[in-house]
Amino acid sequence: MEELITLDYGSGGKKTSRLIGEQILPRFKNAALEALGDGAIVPGGEKLVFSTDSFVVDPLFFPGGDIGKLAVCGTVNDVAMCGGEPRFLSCALLIEEGLPMETLERVLSSVQAACEAAGVQIVTGDTKVVEKGRGDKLYINTAGFGPLRFPGLSPKAIREGDRVLVSGTVGDHGAAVMLARTGMGQDAVRSDCAPLHRMAAALLEADLGVRVLRDPTRGGVATTLNEFIEGTDLGIRLREEDIPVAPPVRAACELLGLEPLYCANEGKLLAVVPPESEQAALALLRSFPEGRAAAAIGTVTAVRPGTLVLRTRLGAGRILQKLTGAQLPRIC
Amino acid sequence: MEELITLDYGSGGKKTSRLIGEQILPRFKNAALEALGDGAIVPGGEKLVFSTDSFVVDPLFFPGGDIGKLAVCGTVNDVAMCGGEPRFLSCALLIEEGLPMETLERVLSSVQAACEAAGVQIVTGDTKVVEKGRGDKLYINTAGFGPLRFPGLSPKAIREGDRVLVSGTVGDHGAAVMLARTGMGQDAVRSDCAPLHRMAAALLEADLGVRVLRDPTRGGVATTLNEFIEGTDLGIRLREEDIPVAPPVRAACELLGLEPLYCANEGKLLAVVPPESEQAALALLRSFPEGRAAAAIGTVTAVRPGTLVLRTRLGAGRILQKLTGAQLPRIC
Repeated sequence: MEELITLDYGSGGKKTSRLIGEQILPRFKNAALEALGDGAIVPGGEKLVFSTDSFVVDPLFFPGGDIGKLAVCGTVNDVAMCGGEPRFLSCALLIEEGLPMETLERVLSSVQAACEAAGVQIVTGDTKVVEKGRGDKLYINTAGFGPLRFPGLSPKAIREGDRVLVSGTVGDHGAAVMLARTGMGQDAVRSDCAPLHRMAAALLEADLGVRVLRDPTRGGVATTLNEFIEGTDLGIRLREEDIPVAPPVRAACELLGLEPLYCANEGKLLAVVPPESEQAALALLRSFPEGRAAAAIGTVTAVRPGTLVLRTRLGAGRILQKLTGAQLPRIC
Repeated sequence: MEELITLDYGSGGKKTSRLIGEQILPRFKNAALEALGDGAIVPGGEKLVFSTDSFVVDPLFFPGGDIGKLAVCGTVNDVAMCGGEPRFLSCALLIEEGLPMETLERVLSSVQAACEAAGVQIVTGDTKVVEKGRGDKLYINTAGFGPLRFPGLSPKAIREGDRVLVSGTVGDHGAAVMLARTGMGQDAVRSDCAPLHRMAAALLEADLGVRVLRDPTRGGVATTLNEFIEGTDLGIRLREEDIPVAPPVRAACELLGLEPLYCANEGKLLAVVPPESEQAALALLRSFPEGRAAAAIGTVTAVRPGTLVLRTRLGAGRILQKLTGAQLPRIC
């Protein structure tokens, strides 16, 4: 039977991985792409980090942000997580015919404010308009790059005994967008959408032996941690009681049938650090407003290779796989 | 009355210019963006050229190319026209739910072949899937960059008496896509979609004093030449009998009510050169298969500042403005 692309393929979970692994990597073989970070480190006189993302979030505006802010922060964060200093962005607008000009203006002003806040510049762009019914109001692609400041970050650097840190509460963005989509909740849950490059740079400058950084967007913390240990002989054990979840996010997730560990974040980073750096790294993250709820949430083990296990409050061990299916389509 | 975005805003003509001038430039003020080339030259240890385009061509496959080949060539050419050596590309897929996997595979194989032919690498990417009816099969964004090899190219360098060269027949891509859309013509007209960076580099290396290069895509030759002289005290006079148009393209344009000078090209470049370089530049262009029909089509004058005038076969002078309205929506 003819295979059709379903929404699952865009979930950031298992099907997305399969699509990339089967259709994309075999065609475009090169070391930079195969590292499969959210950005690529490319050679040259000065090494650069390069990243791209398309943003298709629905609705365009949600508590805590909008597609414009998201499009800047998402690419800034991807470059930063690869050890780059984000500097220059492209911005390509894909507009559905009939979009009110006022909506476009609001989004562009938000892009502008986000660029100013992050200290990056839009230096090139593109504008396409498609017929009504061939898009959905507005999609934005940003690509971005900047010099590689901190080389060597990689899931391959992770060692047994390392600690897993998260820079704050999990699931805020996913819960905020899903609530906004239902029309419930109003401002009870706000997206965490924020640029993380300054906090990331401070952490990397502090010489704490950080193994890898990643912002757990689509697919959430559980999917990102699975990607870290996939195909390795290491596992990760999370402690449920240590995972910071804001009470309104927990309530929203229960209402909507979501698991916060699979909910997208847009202003949080995961860091894996050696055990001796745990306290210093936490203190450093907490010194930033965007990291004040930072927590150590798990440990790297050699007990169950390739497996992410959540030790629940009741003491049971629950295996968390990569996101399967489209829990949250068009979350970013 | 509330202003809505219409298809005109994506035509690459006057409304697109207005949108960029009123909504985008005022918000993102910086010298690289304001140069308004199809790419940006960004500072750094080594200067780089950076460009992005989203491709929304309908249909996905057309004689001479497809959206995948177009997405590679389009960005390769934009970087090359700015004097850059295209090296690294991003590739972001925006897929409509229900796309046959086989279609995606064909397009990705075409992206692969185009990258190999152009000698560039896809180093980072993104995959998003939107619900049925919120896209149209497949859109692709590519961004690309590479080192600036030939600085100083700019419409500002154009002088009175300079010659306008085109590297081959005009309107092929636009006519091919429009014919494919109607279901007429079959293979009679083929898109010229091709990478131009090698021919461009040869022209720039030859020390011929090239003022500016540009690939006349959306909006065609007439729109690009208008952009060169906009707001200057120079005009351009074209001679109709010198403009190469392939007979099937001319026939297709007559059938479809199109003007070849406003039809998109995806494998042609416009070069403005000093008069003393005209013959050497033409000979050089013609030494490449993709430039074998190169021609000198016009002269820069001081007679009608800011105006592009076509001297017709009958001796009349016809003013060609920038494309107004959406002559060819979703042509690239």
